[in-house]
Amino acid sequence: MTPDEIRRAAERIAPYVHRTPLVRTTTLGAMAGCELWLKAENLQKVGAFKARGAHNAVFALSEAEAARGVITHSSGNHAAALALAARNRGIEAQVVMPADAPTVKQEAVAGYGATITLCEPTLEAREQTVAEIQGRTGAVLVHPYDDVHVIAGQGTAGLEIVDQLGSTPPDVVVVPVGGGGLLSGVALAIKEALPECEVLGAEPTGADDAHRSLVAGRLIPQTDPNTIADGLLTSLGERNFAIITALVDDIMLVDDRQIIEAMELIWTRCKLVVEPSGAVAVAAVLNHRDRFAGRRVVALLTGGNVDLGNLPWDVDQGSDVVG
Amino acid sequence: MTPDEIRRAAERIAPYVHRTPLVRTTTLGAMAGCELWLKAENLQKVGAFKARGAHNAVFALSEAEAARGVITHSSGNHAAALALAARNRGIEAQVVMPADAPTVKQEAVAGYGATITLCEPTLEAREQTVAEIQGRTGAVLVHPYDDVHVIAGQGTAGLEIVDQLGSTPPDVVVVPVGGGGLLSGVALAIKEALPECEVLGAEPTGADDAHRSLVAGRLIPQTDPNTIADGLLTSLGERNFAIITALVDDIMLVDDRQIIEAMELIWTRCKLVVEPSGAVAVAAVLNHRDRFAGRRVVALLTGGNVDLGNLPWDVDQGSDVVG
Repeated sequence: MTPDEIRRAAERIAPYVHRTPLVRTTTLGAMAGCELWLKAENLQKVGAFKARGAHNAVFALSEAEAARGVITHSSGNHAAALALAARNRGIEAQVVMPADAPTVKQEAVAGYGATITLCEPTLEAREQTVAEIQGRTGAVLVHPYDDVHVIAGQGTAGLEIVDQLGSTPPDVVVVPVGGGGLLSGVALAIKEALPECEVLGAEPTGADDAHRSLVAGRLIPQTDPNTIADGLLTSLGERNFAIITALVDDIMLVDDRQIIEAMELIWTRCKLVVEPSGAVAVAAVLNHRDRFAGRRVVALLTGGNVDLGNLPWDVDQGSDVVG
Repeated sequence: MTPDEIRRAAERIAPYVHRTPLVRTTTLGAMAGCELWLKAENLQKVGAFKARGAHNAVFALSEAEAARGVITHSSGNHAAALALAARNRGIEAQVVMPADAPTVKQEAVAGYGATITLCEPTLEAREQTVAEIQGRTGAVLVHPYDDVHVIAGQGTAGLEIVDQLGSTPPDVVVVPVGGGGLLSGVALAIKEALPECEVLGAEPTGADDAHRSLVAGRLIPQTDPNTIADGLLTSLGERNFAIITALVDDIMLVDDRQIIEAMELIWTRCKLVVEPSGAVAVAAVLNHRDRFAGRRVVALLTGGNVDLGNLPWDVDQGSDVVG
């Protein structure tokens, strides 16, 4: 993979995704002792950075491939992103979801026009169901992270950070890591433009396979993940691990209490709705102060898809909202 | 008041306030049948557009005036904005608040370094306390909306909208109205640059004095306001009424149910935290479709200061957040 592929991705997806704001937060920066910017991918199409990679993968297909449609198995933001990208290209999207996926997620994917097939909530059942549909339709599988077009698409967020900070570049960019699509893509973009800039991953202690893999020098799959950051449960991909090994300086760990505190601070102080996974990079900045003190820091907010009826802090019922 | 004063305000406050993003929302636009942009003043300093007017008023003071400090009576966003502006100029800010003001608001104002004096929760007590402090210190009163520098400062949000949409200007700009500082300032800025663009106010039915005043052709004070939009309870100011009468095309009314629905949609679909008052313009766009259908519309989000422990919709306790 080369940085050129990220520039081509940026051209390809520009008509379909937002150039998201880079928001300076003096309040959280003061708490962390650094200059802090937030790359607000929660304001991206479908509410998450996944719109970038999905659009790049779908619009990179040949006409013959596209005519067969695309397919993925996912219950999260990638499924919604792939459904939107397929609709924008005017092709079919098939999404295989576990039957116990929350109704709100099924509705989101269906709302973008994808065909949903429900299956048993096991990885085996998901893969088997995908294989059956592929056998019938020839649909092209778009993996959520271990895919060169997806990595290049996610990397476009890194190109924007470089452009948005211009002549006063960041010293360090912090990116949440699950499968590693975003971290590997952003690392490629940042390290080419700014070789001196550190690129750090941020990961929940309850799903710390990227940290353990980087330390061990080999890919260690995640088993039994346990974290509120439900977008980061998955194991690191092979392509992603190779790029991260080459380019990422370190992976910072944060626990669920720190993630929830960061999430609440982003809502109350920055007025941005982020999901728990989306707050993990900010949690790392706030809880590893020595690493960031006095530096120019960009933390990436990955997404903002939450159920407002189910929040991880104490809430009173009522209608007396403080304005 | 002339549009020149708004341009001078923009230069004066530029070092201290954010140029806030203008966010396109295709989802809410499709619901309303129009092209819809949100001017995100909830992302402004202190979480509300009030930072603009307060900074312009404070930095327009002569050295002699500034040395005496500034004062206001308010329990809302203007108090926090004035406190921050005074701190940025290095002068004293006095804020008179009713003793029953929520602790969270007192803490916010104190956090910006203002001196708080608590008084009985009546308008008489507030004004008497202000007069006592002014007699002792000579502090300059900065009114929250009926003040030329405050109006000019708020109007800078309108200049940004014109600049941000560039060669494809809006057909209509919708602004919440309480005292009318923001609506009058934005109307001055918009109508000078884009005489064909409509400027509409949006107001809760439970505090509809601006609507009634515009219909009657004379200022009718608000008595016994009753709305969840607690930033819009106040009566229209005299200077504000004069400008609004001259430049604003209409005032659209929305009820509290429509305000809460719009607030929830902005949180869930646009990933932006807004307070009830901040959602009133979007509520107007969603509930007066005939007025906006097929047009290019900007709705101003005024602020995002809410208590996350007290939300106007049903919430389950728990930690299972949908990502």
